[in-house]
Amino acid sequence: MSPSKKVCILGSGNWGSTAARIVGGNVVKLADFDDTVKLWVYEELVNGRKLTDIINTEHENVKYLPGHKLPKNVVAVSDAIEAVKGATHIIIVIPHQFIKHLLDTVRGSILPNATAISLIKGIGISDRGMTTMTQTIHRTLAIPVSSLSGANIADEIAEEKYCETTIGCHDPDEAIVWRSLFNTPYFQVNCVADVIGVEFCGALKNVVAVGAGFIDGLGLGNNTKAAIIRIGFLEMRRLAMHISGAHIQESTFMESCGIADVITTCYGGRNRRLAEEFVKTGKPMPQLEKEMLNGQKLQGYLTAEEVHSYIDSCGVTDHFPLFTNIYQICYEHKPPYTIFAGLNVDFSRDTQTPSSPAAML
Amino acid sequence: MSPSKKVCILGSGNWGSTAARIVGGNVVKLADFDDTVKLWVYEELVNGRKLTDIINTEHENVKYLPGHKLPKNVVAVSDAIEAVKGATHIIIVIPHQFIKHLLDTVRGSILPNATAISLIKGIGISDRGMTTMTQTIHRTLAIPVSSLSGANIADEIAEEKYCETTIGCHDPDEAIVWRSLFNTPYFQVNCVADVIGVEFCGALKNVVAVGAGFIDGLGLGNNTKAAIIRIGFLEMRRLAMHISGAHIQESTFMESCGIADVITTCYGGRNRRLAEEFVKTGKPMPQLEKEMLNGQKLQGYLTAEEVHSYIDSCGVTDHFPLFTNIYQICYEHKPPYTIFAGLNVDFSRDTQTPSSPAAML
Repeated sequence: MSPSKKVCILGSGNWGSTAARIVGGNVVKLADFDDTVKLWVYEELVNGRKLTDIINTEHENVKYLPGHKLPKNVVAVSDAIEAVKGATHIIIVIPHQFIKHLLDTVRGSILPNATAISLIKGIGISDRGMTTMTQTIHRTLAIPVSSLSGANIADEIAEEKYCETTIGCHDPDEAIVWRSLFNTPYFQVNCVADVIGVEFCGALKNVVAVGAGFIDGLGLGNNTKAAIIRIGFLEMRRLAMHISGAHIQESTFMESCGIADVITTCYGGRNRRLAEEFVKTGKPMPQLEKEMLNGQKLQGYLTAEEVHSYIDSCGVTDHFPLFTNIYQICYEHKPPYTIFAGLNVDFSRDTQTPSSPAAML
Repeated sequence: MSPSKKVCILGSGNWGSTAARIVGGNVVKLADFDDTVKLWVYEELVNGRKLTDIINTEHENVKYLPGHKLPKNVVAVSDAIEAVKGATHIIIVIPHQFIKHLLDTVRGSILPNATAISLIKGIGISDRGMTTMTQTIHRTLAIPVSSLSGANIADEIAEEKYCETTIGCHDPDEAIVWRSLFNTPYFQVNCVADVIGVEFCGALKNVVAVGAGFIDGLGLGNNTKAAIIRIGFLEMRRLAMHISGAHIQESTFMESCGIADVITTCYGGRNRRLAEEFVKTGKPMPQLEKEMLNGQKLQGYLTAEEVHSYIDSCGVTDHFPLFTNIYQICYEHKPPYTIFAGLNVDFSRDTQTPSSPAAML
């Protein structure tokens, strides 16, 4: 019997190539999966050679994950339609600004029984509510979409340092399949039934990291940073309940995508570093992005603005003093030390009551 | 009307002197409190002068909190009986190995309507269960005893860097009084009704810090450390429920004494540092204590042994893989890399169900 399932990966940046290493290694051990993993690569020339050619001959993405070999069953293709052809399991891991174009390209070519998983960070929040990446993908492709997020710095995973991740998947059987594709001894997957909760945590932690960066910029210590992480984490949880009703499960916040990713991002991470420099230099965030990150856009301070738009329109800024202070420091020239104003909020009643159990989406 | 209340502080080390700075500053603003705060000092000579004399003339504990003035209404005394005389509010903040002797000294001299608060870290766990410092104090003095713990590195607080702390107090009216004695704009107090939960967190976080130190010693990265912190935190919470029934409240773990202190201790802290050196040098913990800390005893690896004795006698080591691995690395010559063995535990069902609400002690 030939394998009935086939996986493809759309995106071959740092995180996509890392995912290809993991999935490519696992898929050959799974009898119901075709060994070949098509990896869609946005074609570019590296030292005069096509990146797809380099990957297919050297088995290394020399541009985005140098120093780590990809399994030989990972085959790079430059045509996204060719990549998704026959794929039952589609892993989407491209920068979020390119998602619309990619989805429009592949929408007519995917199998009707295909299923997808998004490794993309970034949700949209406005005064009308929240839209997540899995919702955007689902609306265009009309297939089930799961999510994956966690305390996952790609380079550390490529070095096979132990870590955890969280998969959000509504269907318990599909969750087992996604887990079998991603789980390794050094990359431990936990599955939850809360797709958007996983995405929410992955986006909102960047706002907390901006706050942590301010603390570093102010030269304050470990106590202070731990206080900001604690309050930020609890405001994340509070916002999730407010913006999603009971659709996001409180327990998701204790998974790798929640508390662990908040911690990692507040100690390492570029959002933290940008915020630290913001305090030290007084330069605006966009200018610092240009100087420090070659113009690459970071999510933290943009998400802070979106969150503020939402809580302000709902009239609940008082319930989110840290998020409000971070917004005002970023956008309203408040001095960084005002981050501490009014933080003595009681979060102890925020836990879900038995009368409002988290609904599965 | 003369003030009806009087506070004293038993202990003048680094943390006791920091507490004296805070409480001494607050008490003069509280009409029902006597302005004078007696500070019991274990008398010793510093450069040929009595430490009590130095504190009462220079208003600085030059040995344990140099560089920070104490308020002039803080009066050092070398006689513990004199310190507690007439005190309605007794703050106890001495190294735990001296507590028995101190309690025996003052037990006949305290007011019958006095109340106490323990700032002491350290609980005792054996195969028969857990005894906390507030329980020990309560059994000897027969007065109500509250607890205070949080992400509180004393030197950072003395420098008035913003942080939070948690007071565990059964009586809501007394909680307000303790809060008024400790709360400042830079030292934010939250009160919970869970006295032993606060103490439990303060002790168990040191075991997690040993695990975090092993990760640092192994040269692993942020992802890995965040995973260990997450799992350690959840094993702490699980152990609390196991060892205390529903007496410890789950919500206490989200206070400063819980998640924030775990984070601080796993990034700074001496337990973490000792464990890092343990991995790097292969020397036994007691030898490293002698070399690095002038023989001072740390709690982390001792508490790890106590925890193991308890979970082993209950036959539940499988439910605490991280605590078990940390114990075996410390005491059974297992290599540090075995810290990852069997960590894929499901904690998602650990939250308290409505049928077992946390009881107030």
